[in-house]
Amino acid sequence: MEHNLKLYNSVTREKEAFKPMQDGHVGMYVCGPTVYYDVHLGNCRTFVSFDVIYRYLQYIGYRVRYVRNITDVGHLLDDGEDRMLKGARLEQLEPMEVAQKYTVGFHEMMRIFNALPPSIEPRATGHIPEQIEMVQDILKNGYGYEANGSVYFDTLKFIEKTGIYGGLSGRNVEELVAESRDNLKNQSEKRHPADFAIWMKASPEHIMRWRSPWSEGFPGWHLECSAMSTKYLGPEFDIHGGGNDLKFPHHENEIAQNYGSCQCKGARYWMHTNMLLLNGKKMSKSDGNTISPPELFVGDSEHVSKGYSPMVVRFFMLQTHYRSTLDLTDEALQAAEKGFRRLMDADKTLQSLQPDAAASPGPLDAELNSLMDGVYEEMDDDFNTPKTLARIFELVSRINSLKGGQLPISEVSADTLARLKQVFHDFVYVVFGLLDEDATEGNDGTLDGLMQLIIDIRADARGRKDWGTSDKIRDALKSLRLQLKDGKEGTSWGRE
Amino acid sequence: MEHNLKLYNSVTREKEAFKPMQDGHVGMYVCGPTVYYDVHLGNCRTFVSFDVIYRYLQYIGYRVRYVRNITDVGHLLDDGEDRMLKGARLEQLEPMEVAQKYTVGFHEMMRIFNALPPSIEPRATGHIPEQIEMVQDILKNGYGYEANGSVYFDTLKFIEKTGIYGGLSGRNVEELVAESRDNLKNQSEKRHPADFAIWMKASPEHIMRWRSPWSEGFPGWHLECSAMSTKYLGPEFDIHGGGNDLKFPHHENEIAQNYGSCQCKGARYWMHTNMLLLNGKKMSKSDGNTISPPELFVGDSEHVSKGYSPMVVRFFMLQTHYRSTLDLTDEALQAAEKGFRRLMDADKTLQSLQPDAAASPGPLDAELNSLMDGVYEEMDDDFNTPKTLARIFELVSRINSLKGGQLPISEVSADTLARLKQVFHDFVYVVFGLLDEDATEGNDGTLDGLMQLIIDIRADARGRKDWGTSDKIRDALKSLRLQLKDGKEGTSWGRE
Repeated sequence: MEHNLKLYNSVTREKEAFKPMQDGHVGMYVCGPTVYYDVHLGNCRTFVSFDVIYRYLQYIGYRVRYVRNITDVGHLLDDGEDRMLKGARLEQLEPMEVAQKYTVGFHEMMRIFNALPPSIEPRATGHIPEQIEMVQDILKNGYGYEANGSVYFDTLKFIEKTGIYGGLSGRNVEELVAESRDNLKNQSEKRHPADFAIWMKASPEHIMRWRSPWSEGFPGWHLECSAMSTKYLGPEFDIHGGGNDLKFPHHENEIAQNYGSCQCKGARYWMHTNMLLLNGKKMSKSDGNTISPPELFVGDSEHVSKGYSPMVVRFFMLQTHYRSTLDLTDEALQAAEKGFRRLMDADKTLQSLQPDAAASPGPLDAELNSLMDGVYEEMDDDFNTPKTLARIFELVSRINSLKGGQLPISEVSADTLARLKQVFHDFVYVVFGLLDEDATEGNDGTLDGLMQLIIDIRADARGRKDWGTSDKIRDALKSLRLQLKDGKEGTSWGRE
Repeated sequence: MEHNLKLYNSVTREKEAFKPMQDGHVGMYVCGPTVYYDVHLGNCRTFVSFDVIYRYLQYIGYRVRYVRNITDVGHLLDDGEDRMLKGARLEQLEPMEVAQKYTVGFHEMMRIFNALPPSIEPRATGHIPEQIEMVQDILKNGYGYEANGSVYFDTLKFIEKTGIYGGLSGRNVEELVAESRDNLKNQSEKRHPADFAIWMKASPEHIMRWRSPWSEGFPGWHLECSAMSTKYLGPEFDIHGGGNDLKFPHHENEIAQNYGSCQCKGARYWMHTNMLLLNGKKMSKSDGNTISPPELFVGDSEHVSKGYSPMVVRFFMLQTHYRSTLDLTDEALQAAEKGFRRLMDADKTLQSLQPDAAASPGPLDAELNSLMDGVYEEMDDDFNTPKTLARIFELVSRINSLKGGQLPISEVSADTLARLKQVFHDFVYVVFGLLDEDATEGNDGTLDGLMQLIIDIRADARGRKDWGTSDKIRDALKSLRLQLKDGKEGTSWGRE
């Protein structure tokens, strides 16, 4: 099947046809987590969104090099004691120990959400030479200056010479100056408030530090992504992604650094995910409007009535387009849970459908194929997962009707049924990356085997009007949140 | 409880009392995997051994900084094309993509074996500046020389001046020369065959390369561990571990580098794990005498009659002391599987034991306490897991006899029973790091709930002499490899 993939480019503010630089290959860089705290649910949304994008690009045939960094340059301070004091080292704070703890936690959370690992996961601390070289190139090209051992990017000069700053975030220089995070910090060293640090001289108590031509210090925060995307994807590459909040100053400064160091464009397509809200408002710890992934999974929060499994949360995320704000509410999660179960049940139902040997394909056959084409069309339209899901749920209705006999299986060709099984499976598991949680829990078949035994015993009991046993089974399953469904083709089971 | 921990030091070839440099703290460095191939079962043995050591050190109260590196400096060669050729980059081999693939696989395998992540997991490529600085220090101290852009460690001069080379591996210089891996390589550049590279100038097709004062190149293999252990644990630290095969040249050269760069001792205690054999012989791909962890888990190998779960394999590893060779055979694994099940069943049995309110502690009480003291004593004796397990299985016998009534619970005080529950739980799960695989599979209680329902139905059926239902349950459970055990205090279930 031909794909006319379009994606929304934050730079041009338009949906554009996607044309990678190299036929069949895609280079994609996504800003990863800072590993000095637990990953937020909003970050998880961003990484799940790009996981689906990564999965779909691969699914339609691209070889994707997906680079997602780990920001592990930490700004922890020590207590001022001499670190080299013999024997005392282990008592002192070691930033890498903190970084490791949260990196492990982040990986575990990505595993729980079934997000694939990226192709390369470079660490900022692991690319100090590359960052120093980039600072040197920026200085050589006249877009930076040194002051007291720190090096700053000369934003004003860059704008005058190139005119390309502010294009991504749509801000003019006055706005940038007003909003600049560094507005007041190191004001005396900077020539202009819009300038930003690309190398910082470390204060004596700053623990993480490396030698450089300018000082013992550390790279500016924006530099790592420019250096690492260049190293692994080249000075110009296809896609750069991240959360909306990174557009300015982080991504704007990345563009400036790439151009300033080698007159390179960097990314051709910029993609940004939108915010995750909780009950219509921005999450905020200070006013209690917040929920962490573990709290959400077990229901340990005033904001939810119960826990929601990681796959329900993943499904919930996919119900909204990555460029729209996603509002997390208990009601929406309950609905997502029902939708997710319906999807999983439909897959089991679909796998049990057998083609009619004497089928004569009618309008239903054409309709199914058209719905399936639509599934791809919606995904090709800027990875529109909610619209794709809508098409898939139209297929779910047809699948259930085919099972129930309201729609005739005799009007569906064997080829169409086979395609339906393939497309359904591919989108649910391969592209959307959902997991059948029942299958995962009893992945050696034990759970399914026990349920089959219980279904048999129940059928026997009913046959001999032994309502006691039948009731006992009903009550026990209810307390385990399992349910049986009796259908034309026998009894099946699922989660409540 | 007081601990008199002793460990065998490979340097002194003696068991020594363990005295950490800082009270209450331990710094431990273990050579981690090379991430350009799948982790071998023999490596898994090493990492599981040090995982138990790490767990036990923490269990007896130490704060441990456990550093295990990732060797990701790769020696892949490109095809000679110009790598900077616009647009072609994604088609070319990227060593970091290979390293990421195998790093992810390694982490997954450690998770499967339930090995805790280390406190810090530094990557060789992430510590190029530190390695360059160490080379500079070695040159400054006169223990290295440059030749054509590469830098070599001057082993002969080092021996003459310090006399400390060869102490770990117990070799003299003539032997070292004869055995040196680099014996013939770069012979013309080296002044003596025992010298080894600490910085290598990269040939044109070598992909991974960094700028240095001597050449664009890469660090010598031995250097990373010296540089990273120094960075995170200090120039002198407590424990350095690794596989026996790393003693020479890797660890011998590490010692030389540490001393050569700062006259530092490096590690005070060197610990080495012994080899994993398969059917009495060294594993070797070329003669087919090999098995990978996944093959072992599913039984996909001519060397095993069936699959063995990761926890059975972990238990199997603990049945042999880390300093002894471990011979993997199908018979030994079958025995380990039985032992592991027996251990897990005993834990369930133990949890069901209730103290006798009118207990009057007798000799049995003293015996149980003495066995428990023994558990610690064996672990304190160079982490002797097989002897520790032997003591634990003596406790298993007592637990089963207490349950069966052959030993009187009335002779065990409530305190002793509580201690027994604690010690048993701690050693099985916390120190040995075993997992109850039944609990893990149905970790929301579903499996246990269903089994309880089936046990109830079976009891009812037997009560009314409904042998049909009872047989149906027996057969179904047998096919799922589950079994019921009828005891004095009701029916329990377990895996076959």
